[in-house]
Amino acid sequence: MLLTGSVVVDPRTVLRDGAIVTEGPRIERVGKRSEIAPQYTDHEHQSYDILLPGLVGGHIHSVQSLGRGIADNTELLDWLFDYILPMEASLSAREMEVAAKLGYLEMIESGTTTCIDHLSVAHADEAFEAAGEIGIRGVLGKVMMDQRSPDGLLEDTQEALDMSERLIQKYHGSFDDRIRYAVTPRFAVSCTEDCLRGARELADAYDGVRIHTHANENRSEIKTIKNDTGMRNIHWLNEVGLTGKDVVLAHCVWTDESEREVLAETGTHVTHCPSSNMKLASGIAPIWDYLNRGINVALGNDGPPCNNTLDAFTEMRQASLLQKVDRLDPTTTPPARIFEMATLNGAKAAGFDELGAIREGWRADIVGLSTDCTRATPLHDILSHIVFAAHGDDVRFTMVDGTVLQEKGKMTAIDAEAVRQRASEIGLDMDLEEERRSAQQQKPIED
Amino acid sequence: MLLTGSVVVDPRTVLRDGAIVTEGPRIERVGKRSEIAPQYTDHEHQSYDILLPGLVGGHIHSVQSLGRGIADNTELLDWLFDYILPMEASLSAREMEVAAKLGYLEMIESGTTTCIDHLSVAHADEAFEAAGEIGIRGVLGKVMMDQRSPDGLLEDTQEALDMSERLIQKYHGSFDDRIRYAVTPRFAVSCTEDCLRGARELADAYDGVRIHTHANENRSEIKTIKNDTGMRNIHWLNEVGLTGKDVVLAHCVWTDESEREVLAETGTHVTHCPSSNMKLASGIAPIWDYLNRGINVALGNDGPPCNNTLDAFTEMRQASLLQKVDRLDPTTTPPARIFEMATLNGAKAAGFDELGAIREGWRADIVGLSTDCTRATPLHDILSHIVFAAHGDDVRFTMVDGTVLQEKGKMTAIDAEAVRQRASEIGLDMDLEEERRSAQQQKPIED
Repeated sequence: MLLTGSVVVDPRTVLRDGAIVTEGPRIERVGKRSEIAPQYTDHEHQSYDILLPGLVGGHIHSVQSLGRGIADNTELLDWLFDYILPMEASLSAREMEVAAKLGYLEMIESGTTTCIDHLSVAHADEAFEAAGEIGIRGVLGKVMMDQRSPDGLLEDTQEALDMSERLIQKYHGSFDDRIRYAVTPRFAVSCTEDCLRGARELADAYDGVRIHTHANENRSEIKTIKNDTGMRNIHWLNEVGLTGKDVVLAHCVWTDESEREVLAETGTHVTHCPSSNMKLASGIAPIWDYLNRGINVALGNDGPPCNNTLDAFTEMRQASLLQKVDRLDPTTTPPARIFEMATLNGAKAAGFDELGAIREGWRADIVGLSTDCTRATPLHDILSHIVFAAHGDDVRFTMVDGTVLQEKGKMTAIDAEAVRQRASEIGLDMDLEEERRSAQQQKPIED
Repeated sequence: MLLTGSVVVDPRTVLRDGAIVTEGPRIERVGKRSEIAPQYTDHEHQSYDILLPGLVGGHIHSVQSLGRGIADNTELLDWLFDYILPMEASLSAREMEVAAKLGYLEMIESGTTTCIDHLSVAHADEAFEAAGEIGIRGVLGKVMMDQRSPDGLLEDTQEALDMSERLIQKYHGSFDDRIRYAVTPRFAVSCTEDCLRGARELADAYDGVRIHTHANENRSEIKTIKNDTGMRNIHWLNEVGLTGKDVVLAHCVWTDESEREVLAETGTHVTHCPSSNMKLASGIAPIWDYLNRGINVALGNDGPPCNNTLDAFTEMRQASLLQKVDRLDPTTTPPARIFEMATLNGAKAAGFDELGAIREGWRADIVGLSTDCTRATPLHDILSHIVFAAHGDDVRFTMVDGTVLQEKGKMTAIDAEAVRQRASEIGLDMDLEEERRSAQQQKPIED
């Protein structure tokens, strides 16, 4: 396929009047349109204003999509125990499939081509099948919760690990290696030591399997772990093996100096979720410090109930603005750095090589943006536009592994209208009363 | 005209299956569709998913629109003296007209129907004519700068006041009272005491004329005023008459207890510009404290060079998220409060009565939103959707004073394509070298 763009941009290069040729799942050629286009006149040809690498959602909860807007303006523990956990516990396999599809649909529409996706305890198969079928690239994991968890989610330790292993065997490397597995303890609070150590063993037993969990999102979590183990959370995770080049930790808002050293020394990846951290009032993660230490930082939207969208452009803007005001330094986290976080850094966290830039031989995950809008006028600076003014609505083209999922603004991968309609029916009809009563019995008392 | 909506929403009411009838510039009836629609079958009828009051941009620089993206990631003084002031000094009357039109176009497209608009020193007439012609509601003011300002912007004090008075006489109350005047000193740093006191005299001499300026945006500004006057900035403004129920102060990021008391006691309006404060790294304004003191707080996008859009939905989301993380309290500034800031509070700051809600007899400034998108699925909570997930791109209908400016997603008020094209030509062709050399001579040395 021949793609031409007024601009082809990636974290390293801005190429005016560019062209990309894809062949199967890979990028075959990149260069000036005038040189390349005449050689590929037999190829299908589409043209967009800006062509960029597909964005990577480094921490996503696609299956929470049915809860968009159900739990705004609530304290974190109310948010979790009155709404989110009851919702996850209540969903049937069929409903979980729709929830996942809604999430993948929103990401593909708005330019995210790869997600590191935190599923739920049950019905993970449905999400794997949905991701595989729709065509997004993903590192998905069934959530494990074997302590301090409500009925409907609480599992036996061995059962959690066995189910994870079954899913690894079934889905890791599936769909032409577009879908991979991350062992996914929810967070240290809801997992026993055996479960956490078991996660490391599973990841070591299967080549390329990653570990994905939440860490240091808020201070009560850290206090709980300190009470349980006598250690700060990152030290505890390090102790049980959940740090390293194959580990993605979401949030890392509250870390002390010694924890940051562990993250840097072990090559652990951090996913920054600025909108979620703001909306849940978790705090402001010291991203500039992580970047300066050489820690690989990706970006993520987290889930619709705490965001409320899966638009990665919104997250890029938010990440830059939040660091600037936090440091009182307008020069920090400029667009090029942020764009790199949303592409190359995300790909690195996800563990896919040759992903996150527009280069010959690399994976053909490509997004096309329209700049036919007032927000893009005048267009002085492409990277500034992408980070500060563009929006998921501008995305008109989405390709993953060389397969077109959206073109000229229309989804080709899935019947978007049908998914939205089904999601509305289920979402607006959710009755969480029973699950809420059960979950509330597990709710910690805040001190 | 008959407008029907799946939901009609304003800061006080959520009405399902609602209808609004407008007659001339006013809302004649509001109620259930089933009751009202059958009585107005002879009226032109349009239907949208959500109908809401037009949003109010409480601090806007429409004429900076050509500088969108020219000065990102720069220190405030570099931003101002290397880019923004040179740009303002360089624009011809014809170019200023295009700049203003681009700003009004972006606002009308994205749901802002009223702006409190900080123009530039010269060529204010062009902006007034553009706003009047295009149909936005506005409180506009020519900027006054009579000290510490670069050539091309620096004015004689009396000249600045005389030109302001001429514009008041020409435009205040014009276009059926849709366009009004605000006397607009740039900020205390660039205005002499005579200029500031003259602003108060002008506002007192003409009924309904307001005063609009920047205040306490950053700490070097406050230090400069302290050196000049021995006072904190708000005390100085109070001393020269620039506080009160007819005064709108943009930013107020850094205020001490005694200044907040002055703002509350005098009934001075504050416009919060969260994205601008973040991008320029000014700081986080204590909005929750202002609201608790009963200070009227509006929202504003500021200008495209420091935002980079004029989308009020982005600003609502940003305002809520920023206060939540700043206070570490997820319950603060919920959507209803934020929506009120962007509508009723903005209208109060702008000085238009019967504006900012959908009520019988009130001004017919109405916006129609589409919820036919994945971001709006499922739609659990209308206010949450409007503040956290909606976007200016969702706006399909814009009415001001009963006149339709956009319908079914198409601008009817202005040839949008022509404005964008002209703006691109001028914007991308700006040569600021000469003005920059001049401006840099006035640049304060930071200590």
